[in-house]
Amino acid sequence: MCRFLAWAGAKRYLDELVLNQEQSLVIQSRNALIGKTPINADGFGLAWCSERETPCFYKDTNPAWSDANLKQLTHHTRSHLFLAHVRASTGTATSRNNCHPFGVGKWSFMHNGQAGGHDRIRQELDGMIPPDLYSHRLGATESEAIFLIAHGEGLDIDPIGAMERAVQRVEDLSRRRGTMPYLRFAACWSDGDRLFAARYASDRFAPSLHYKACKDGFIISSEPLDANSGEWTEIPANTAIETRGGALTSHAFEPKAPHHRAEVA
Amino acid sequence: MCRFLAWAGAKRYLDELVLNQEQSLVIQSRNALIGKTPINADGFGLAWCSERETPCFYKDTNPAWSDANLKQLTHHTRSHLFLAHVRASTGTATSRNNCHPFGVGKWSFMHNGQAGGHDRIRQELDGMIPPDLYSHRLGATESEAIFLIAHGEGLDIDPIGAMERAVQRVEDLSRRRGTMPYLRFAACWSDGDRLFAARYASDRFAPSLHYKACKDGFIISSEPLDANSGEWTEIPANTAIETRGGALTSHAFEPKAPHHRAEVA
Amino acid sequence: MCRFLAWAGAKRYLDELVLNQEQSLVIQSRNALIGKTPINADGFGLAWCSERETPCFYKDTNPAWSDANLKQLTHHTRSHLFLAHVRASTGTATSRNNCHPFGVGKWSFMHNGQAGGHDRIRQELDGMIPPDLYSHRLGATESEAIFLIAHGEGLDIDPIGAMERAVQRVEDLSRRRGTMPYLRFAACWSDGDRLFAARYASDRFAPSLHYKACKDGFIISSEPLDANSGEWTEIPANTAIETRGGALTSHAFEPKAPHHRAEVA
Amino acid sequence: MCRFLAWAGAKRYLDELVLNQEQSLVIQSRNALIGKTPINADGFGLAWCSERETPCFYKDTNPAWSDANLKQLTHHTRSHLFLAHVRASTGTATSRNNCHPFGVGKWSFMHNGQAGGHDRIRQELDGMIPPDLYSHRLGATESEAIFLIAHGEGLDIDPIGAMERAVQRVEDLSRRRGTMPYLRFAACWSDGDRLFAARYASDRFAPSLHYKACKDGFIISSEPLDANSGEWTEIPANTAIETRGGALTSHAFEPKAPHHRAEVA
Repeated sequence: MCRFLAWAGAKRYLDELVLNQEQSLVIQSRNALIGKTPINADGFGLAWCSERETPCFYKDTNPAWSDANLKQLTHHTRSHLFLAHVRASTGTATSRNNCHPFGVGKWSFMHNGQAGGHDRIRQELDGMIPPDLYSHRLGATESEAIFLIAHGEGLDIDPIGAMERAVQRVEDLSRRRGTMPYLRFAACWSDGDRLFAARYASDRFAPSLHYKACKDGFIISSEPLDANSGEWTEIPANTAIETRGGALTSHAFEPKAPHHRAEVA
Repeated sequence: MCRFLAWAGAKRYLDELVLNQEQSLVIQSRNALIGKTPINADGFGLAWCSERETPCFYKDTNPAWSDANLKQLTHHTRSHLFLAHVRASTGTATSRNNCHPFGVGKWSFMHNGQAGGHDRIRQELDGMIPPDLYSHRLGATESEAIFLIAHGEGLDIDPIGAMERAVQRVEDLSRRRGTMPYLRFAACWSDGDRLFAARYASDRFAPSLHYKACKDGFIISSEPLDANSGEWTEIPANTAIETRGGALTSHAFEPKAPHHRAEVA
Repeated sequence: MCRFLAWAGAKRYLDELVLNQEQSLVIQSRNALIGKTPINADGFGLAWCSERETPCFYKDTNPAWSDANLKQLTHHTRSHLFLAHVRASTGTATSRNNCHPFGVGKWSFMHNGQAGGHDRIRQELDGMIPPDLYSHRLGATESEAIFLIAHGEGLDIDPIGAMERAVQRVEDLSRRRGTMPYLRFAACWSDGDRLFAARYASDRFAPSLHYKACKDGFIISSEPLDANSGEWTEIPANTAIETRGGALTSHAFEPKAPHHRAEVA
Repeated sequence: MCRFLAWAGAKRYLDELVLNQEQSLVIQSRNALIGKTPINADGFGLAWCSERETPCFYKDTNPAWSDANLKQLTHHTRSHLFLAHVRASTGTATSRNNCHPFGVGKWSFMHNGQAGGHDRIRQELDGMIPPDLYSHRLGATESEAIFLIAHGEGLDIDPIGAMERAVQRVEDLSRRRGTMPYLRFAACWSDGDRLFAARYASDRFAPSLHYKACKDGFIISSEPLDANSGEWTEIPANTAIETRGGALTSHAFEPKAPHHRAEVA
């Protein structure tokens, strides 16, 4: 599993959230309080919106706590929208290409979770990636695959529905060929304008996901950045949220794998 | 393109060939004399036979010339059979998983060359890998794919024929969906006992490949390790060699892609 | 602080101790049970005796648990004497040159501990290194400095006494210019034949150190490698041990800094 | 030796100079046209002025040509003043702490050159660093030492004179204890407002240094970024330049080591 956070709102220096909090993301890289793996030290990554059309990515394989560049870059960079992630590998190698966030055009995406039996389904997952996007398949994680499959499902015009369908397809593959738990998914994605997040699992253990409404924007985070948890709202399972400007809206996020529909019928 | 060398024979310290030659492999990492790319500094790798059943791999992403571990390990390790490779990326990332040699069980493999239009054919290449070997697909290079496809073609029982068929299938894919030059291939592979090498291209520019018969074994190398080239034999294109004990035998290596056969008919 | 282990005895594969134990060193890199820092993921290092005159070093900056090379090398390498270390930085950068073990000629050395106020005394520490050994001053740790200062105190002819005097000099510097705790020191060093270890602190909290007598040799380790602790002996503070062949001898290790002597007088 | 460039003027994206030039700095990392070492692939570094009080540093040990982060960061970052450097080690390790530019407070510094016999004089060099700045001594290069010594000579109030005196002291040390060539020095430094550069050698071979006056600022570069060299001015040996706002002024840069003065007298 992994830990992540994102910001959308007024311009903020990244280190305010990534470093300078009671339970900052860098502290979570050594000592996450919620979730299965307290240590999230198999690399990290940032994506922030600049004045260019695409986000800027910085990723590396070191533990976040020891990377001097991370400290420098987050101290000097301000952005109205950014994503930050610390990784705990569920099997694939520690390499920059397996670090989140992933990017295609204006979109960025990061994930905490896994597809059960990933090693058995990886080749089929790779086959589900739209051919015209395969040049963006740089690593070996299921996370990157879900993101690229979501593009094929129409992320640009239906950001939540496309992600729902991608998750559904991957869960279905895991049910057919993988192992339990079939899918656990807490993710955050953005087109540089809106910030989306969703929480879901094929069992009862959807990875944690929270948000906090600030005066000047929204923080989405795997776990609260402080113990004063009254200000943090837990996002329920099977739910997606969307921030746009000063508003946050909530949506159902209920991937319906074919077997589910069959069961319902 | 890349540079490589291999040794089969009496036990030798690896640094004798990797470092302590007039035109050693490490010198080739900065200044290859033959081939398109004088600089081969996108990582390196070693595989050597130990007393265990599988070879030992050491790979890293630094230029070979600056890696202190490489100097240490090659100075202290002796083996009767080893492979060594310095990489010049033809597009894929500089990561350990893209460094040669690649390994499956007792087999190791390294390559200098490329499949034309690799980025366009990569997804199909991935689909050609035998499903039971996909867990060995760790990186994104066509080299690793060829090796895994060759396993599917029966590398264990027909080491040269299986490689020929794998090359044929990849060349055919490149002809259908890739770009010229369709395939260039100089490679070396071993089961820990025998050492194989082959040289081939779909055009007239097969990557360089040489060998030298020593008193106590054979060196195979992309380029001679000294200017005294009288002792080095160039392996002709469309040729494979095989060393076993003190003997070296030569074989035709002529992948026949379907279109070729059609043209011939 | 850090964790380490060493072996002296019959030839053993390194992974037997480094990886394949209930509480192996690699497990200690994520979850040390004794000591101040459960996470020791700021790099790692190995030194083993080969058939060459000097030991072979392999060091890298990744967490030990995610380094594929470490797994390979320890699986394929056997030695009658080796040192292995996982690092938790007490301030200096995560870089190969700050990873233990350190080496000079036939000697290797690794350390768990610190000199209080290292940053304030570092320049003086550097000045205490014998000029002819300054080319071996590759990193910035007090550990490496202590090792080089011990060489200047005659490590070759008096391995325990020289280390005692080096520790004494560094503690004295820390008392004059540094901060409390002045010195904590658990270390292991070897000339390739004998293995030495010592445990000491300027206060009551000497870092943990244990050994186990096996049928074919001795393991020295920061913490027991299994919960069956009946087989492990804790080395008392102010004590050094020495293994040679099948024998282990114990010595006082009581650095007497000048102020101590003054206090005593 | 190394290659570098710097910009002072209107805000520019860093990739305009670092990547998108006929002979960009990244191209110089593989193929420098002037200077002793065509390959400058032992790491790289950037320093740029942001809205914070100190510059932002990004350094890594990969060859500049293969670092995806470098491409991202330079594409998304604009600054009115930045320094960029690609390194060819003259002996010290490839590590982030040995990569230029170096920084103290608002100051940044980068260097192409060397002190002769650096390994012999390194300990004395370390001793010449002002004690209150020794916490900034992170690596082992003579370059970083010169920068810190210059601080001790009053860089804040006399940026060119202090550098002259630092160079003089290091050259003098090299003459006493090192080897020929005693000192070669092309460097660039900045307080975030003014940009300074100087070219000097103890023999006739001062490392190359050029500048180009653009409409909106000045480029300083080890070698011209295009073959249209009519727009580039070579900075003569024994000369420093200073840019401030739209103006560039030239100064003598003539370190007078004691022996020189003796000879003159």
